Amino acid sequence: MCTPVGAYGEIAKAIGPHLEKDAIVSDVGSVKAAAVRDIAPHIPGGVHFIAGHPVAGTEQSGPEAGFAELFDGRWCILTPEADADRMALAKLETFWQRLGSQVEIMTPEHHDLVLAITSHIPHLIAYNIVNTAAHLGRVTDSEVIKFSAGGFRDFTRIAASDPVMWRDVFLNNKEAVLEMLGRFSEDLVSLQRAIRFSDAATLERLFAEARAIRRGIIQAGQDTARPDFGRRPEGTKPSES
Amino acid sequence: MCTPVGAYGEIAKAIGPHLEKDAIVSDVGSVKAAAVRDIAPHIPGGVHFIAGHPVAGTEQSGPEAGFAELFDGRWCILTPEADADRMALAKLETFWQRLGSQVEIMTPEHHDLVLAITSHIPHLIAYNIVNTAAHLGRVTDSEVIKFSAGGFRDFTRIAASDPVMWRDVFLNNKEAVLEMLGRFSEDLVSLQRAIRFSDAATLERLFAEARAIRRGIIQAGQDTARPDFGRRPEGTKPSES
Repeated sequence: MCTPVGAYGEIAKAIGPHLEKDAIVSDVGSVKAAAVRDIAPHIPGGVHFIAGHPVAGTEQSGPEAGFAELFDGRWCILTPEADADRMALAKLETFWQRLGSQVEIMTPEHHDLVLAITSHIPHLIAYNIVNTAAHLGRVTDSEVIKFSAGGFRDFTRIAASDPVMWRDVFLNNKEAVLEMLGRFSEDLVSLQRAIRFSDAATLERLFAEARAIRRGIIQAGQDTARPDFGRRPEGTKPSES
Repeated sequence: MCTPVGAYGEIAKAIGPHLEKDAIVSDVGSVKAAAVRDIAPHIPGGVHFIAGHPVAGTEQSGPEAGFAELFDGRWCILTPEADADRMALAKLETFWQRLGSQVEIMTPEHHDLVLAITSHIPHLIAYNIVNTAAHLGRVTDSEVIKFSAGGFRDFTRIAASDPVMWRDVFLNNKEAVLEMLGRFSEDLVSLQRAIRFSDAATLERLFAEARAIRRGIIQAGQDTARPDFGRRPEGTKPSES
């Protein structure tokens, strides 16, 4: 199932009666506890349901946005229920591995917490800053666009993602998103305070610490936006800030 | 002058007595009112000081991070004082145009406001979310890194920027940054409230509105991170979310 997660219940209800014995049903949605909640009740006995989430993709949607290397080296998270059929799970793991992915197994609840910070909050913040910028009286839209190479542009790419898909993500991962958003806001208030009181040491320390995770991402090979980080491929420009 | 802006006063004081008549002094710093404040008093009569800011660059620092196309199609903002020498200004404009830039003139104060939203706040938020993620008890650093392709990665690139340079930016553009941060936080609280109360219509509307600015950036050609947006260059992958 590859639709906005808000449609899962209806789809599962419609396809449930027509599923063959030993069929495997899975999905690619960005929230997993709600996926299990909405799909599982409609899956008949003898049919295997295992929810999944390939953590890959672009801000584009639909089949046309696919490309052969989309899943290469990416992680696909599967969230089988405790009594899931081991053979069905093994088949689904092989399916994703043959597409180039590495597979990780976790509970739906832990998935939703991890993705809240690595995906949902970044998207929310991206949408938010774009809208903040759009409603400034003293800075025009044209100025925001012209000077976006200063960092803003990095945020706008993910803000171009499908609004309905993301509406459903936030409606269906409310608890984890609100928890992470609370922590993000607390931390942001500390930075705000450091700026207000010209606390140079705190600012420098916090900015320096942020580099370590970036280095980790590059070392873990999850930075294909710049596959030759540090050495530009012939004829291309690095992304800018 | 191409150093962190916190060093400007000292440098200007040191070089001031040695500047030849009709020399042009400029800089490339990310804040301009403080640049004028710190540099101008040390510039002797007959020497021309015009502050500038090429809105281009990567998260890398130093001369080695330069490349021939760095300024191509980018905007360079100059913030001459009202009594600036017209000939010196024309020379500096030509200098940046020959490097490939388009030149825009504005006051230092307006520059600082525009860059607060297009550059300073995005960097602050990027640093902040990386640090929030690093201190989650229930999600490990390794998980954050593994699953960063979900959106988080886009934020980490600019969080790899030089900590001392950015410390000085925030210390020297306090007023505009705090104003923009206040607006950003207000808007974020509205989104948080919409999530808490499952206000689907508001979420979808705000997410949909954010797409327009993104389209504007692509149309304005400020998206060289993906020069062939929508059509992938042979043998490369699009950046992912």
